[in-house]
Amino acid sequence: MIQIAVLGYGTVGSGVVKVMESNHDSIREKAGVDLGVKYVLDLRDFPGDPIQEKIVHDFEVILQDPEVRIVVETMGGLEPAFTFTKKALEAGKSVCTSNKELVARHGTELIQTAREHGASYMFEASCGGGIPIIRPLRTCLCADVIDEITGILNGTTNYILTKMIEEGREFSDVLKEAQQKGYAERNPEADVEGHDACRKIAILSSLAYGKRVDFTDIYTEGITGITPADIQYAKAMGKTIKLLAFSRKEGESVTAMVSPYLVDKEDPLASVNGVFNAIFVHGNMLGDAMFYGQGAGKEATASAVAADVIEEAQVLGRSVMSSWDPQKLALTDVSGTAKRFFVRARGEEAEFSRAQAVFGVAEMVRAGLPGEYGFVTEKMTEEAFQEKAGEFGAVISRLRLREKEALGD
Amino acid sequence: MIQIAVLGYGTVGSGVVKVMESNHDSIREKAGVDLGVKYVLDLRDFPGDPIQEKIVHDFEVILQDPEVRIVVETMGGLEPAFTFTKKALEAGKSVCTSNKELVARHGTELIQTAREHGASYMFEASCGGGIPIIRPLRTCLCADVIDEITGILNGTTNYILTKMIEEGREFSDVLKEAQQKGYAERNPEADVEGHDACRKIAILSSLAYGKRVDFTDIYTEGITGITPADIQYAKAMGKTIKLLAFSRKEGESVTAMVSPYLVDKEDPLASVNGVFNAIFVHGNMLGDAMFYGQGAGKEATASAVAADVIEEAQVLGRSVMSSWDPQKLALTDVSGTAKRFFVRARGEEAEFSRAQAVFGVAEMVRAGLPGEYGFVTEKMTEEAFQEKAGEFGAVISRLRLREKEALGD
Repeated sequence: MIQIAVLGYGTVGSGVVKVMESNHDSIREKAGVDLGVKYVLDLRDFPGDPIQEKIVHDFEVILQDPEVRIVVETMGGLEPAFTFTKKALEAGKSVCTSNKELVARHGTELIQTAREHGASYMFEASCGGGIPIIRPLRTCLCADVIDEITGILNGTTNYILTKMIEEGREFSDVLKEAQQKGYAERNPEADVEGHDACRKIAILSSLAYGKRVDFTDIYTEGITGITPADIQYAKAMGKTIKLLAFSRKEGESVTAMVSPYLVDKEDPLASVNGVFNAIFVHGNMLGDAMFYGQGAGKEATASAVAADVIEEAQVLGRSVMSSWDPQKLALTDVSGTAKRFFVRARGEEAEFSRAQAVFGVAEMVRAGLPGEYGFVTEKMTEEAFQEKAGEFGAVISRLRLREKEALGD
Repeated sequence: MIQIAVLGYGTVGSGVVKVMESNHDSIREKAGVDLGVKYVLDLRDFPGDPIQEKIVHDFEVILQDPEVRIVVETMGGLEPAFTFTKKALEAGKSVCTSNKELVARHGTELIQTAREHGASYMFEASCGGGIPIIRPLRTCLCADVIDEITGILNGTTNYILTKMIEEGREFSDVLKEAQQKGYAERNPEADVEGHDACRKIAILSSLAYGKRVDFTDIYTEGITGITPADIQYAKAMGKTIKLLAFSRKEGESVTAMVSPYLVDKEDPLASVNGVFNAIFVHGNMLGDAMFYGQGAGKEATASAVAADVIEEAQVLGRSVMSSWDPQKLALTDVSGTAKRFFVRARGEEAEFSRAQAVFGVAEMVRAGLPGEYGFVTEKMTEEAFQEKAGEFGAVISRLRLREKEALGD
């Protein structure tokens, strides 16, 4: 039996223990590995709970026990998760994690440490929760040159947007409800400002393009500015609004951005609703593919962590190859990237001709709101848009349009 | 360099050669294997084409060459594909294929032969074309007990249904167009009667449930009976019609079926249009997940074959573990499975009360067609439906409803 230690008995950690116990026999049969949880590290005690006999409070117990070959880090946050992970890898123990913050910040170093010590550092659950995406990128799309990744990578914001759209409600109102239901944290900034999605697209882009993408380089906008009026216009256009985390490679240059986008109803990303996540990938041979599932949740995330544990157990003593180079990838300045913009403008529809004159060929959008009208600009760079918006003057708000080539015929 | 031989220089075979050439450096870098195509077996010659220097007409050349470690079988059909595959595996060469007919018929035996000779037999491209599904089932969902697979697994029928729905056209008319465009074969029976989807769900179910599912045991209905009138009713219900290949495990019993279904617009499978395919999977921990992409096409399919080639190259001399037991899985008789049915009935709406009396609580559906009306029955077994339909007498046609629990909140 291969012994595991789980760091942190919170939502994901307890989920991993549950998966290992509930599906133990099925895992042994399907994957050929016999896995057991020997320790659970937590500050708390759980008197009366069967987990109590596995609880330890001192990481050294785990580190010094040669029977423990795999460490599952589900503590979250940077410290002590980083120190514990580093020490475990240096001791030749493989580590897997759901901690996107740690992977985005120190993944490059930890992958390197793992490799130097014949261990593996894996993080399937760090992006898209239960959705298999990191392993498919490594093993299924390895014959492809990947040139685009676009994801709905944050369940909280997708839940909020879905509710706002379905029920025509205000952001702050839906946020409060999401917090009550446990879908949003008390301090929701990391989610609603797009930081969480930003870390995830940085990890996925690093893997897809083979070089380290620094999340702090990625232009990021959240959903706090989205209003019911924006949604009325979106509906008038037959579109929906999604917070997309996006990166694209053209030649040697890579662009990345996190921002709300207007998405066509026909786009498969449009039907990803509620707490679900999806990751769209384009490969030079594969074409379009999409991976859809639960982006969070105890058992779904634990299922992804457990798949990493299984793979690490199958290759004990070897490093799982990772194609992520420590060399940093320089991102293109987003101001030079082109797209169409939707604009809410102050004034009357009669003034549309001025919008046309300033923004080029523009398409009017009517949502029946008094004292304003909407339009879609021609394709232009962010910089050109800023300039024209300054000249035009009457911009209330603007949204980017996701440009997607025809799907199928 | 690891040498490959490709059997059959048709659509997929030439795609594999293209992937190997176009992405050679990227594959070496990402996957750490240096792959070269040494031979291409084809009856034809290709004078003037650079491929000509690799063309051989005799399989023995490939079989006897110890440099060839991996054979890509993209011939299609049962013979000589079966014999060549068997011989290659017996010679310790790994084989990968896109040939679902061969895998559905002889996969069990060929997996066994591979294992006995330290080789691998892989078939990612046999289901869902370019969509990564078989490898994710094996490596990403290995911690899960899978209890449902539902797929749109045939691009031809999905294209035809999409066109019929979008344009209100007749089946035969759209089929003709699909044939002209090359989306349907001259003899379209395997596609439109559901046989192709049936083979694929048999393969996926064998992998998911760990025992051989015989495709000849699966109840299969195609789309030839779908009419524009059915589509009018579907639209009136806010639903769409999809040919679904479906299997579900409850306890020790497994049901499988291929049939057109009415699918809710909210269901992620509803937005899979045109030639795209998607595979929905439910795991006991993961919950709902879906894999979406191109179900056919030269390069997409070749991308999936190439991923198999790469994995086989990485583990040369070992067998990739497969969890598919030769023991045949007995399927439950579909007549005992329950669902709701949509019925088109001859007569006037005033006669609806009789429908209610016969079919239990029923919900009327109006599509404005003269001399008929529609309704949805309560949930009942196929057998009970048959019986009640006989009693009722006035059934013009019927469609099954896909029952899906709420997705997210």
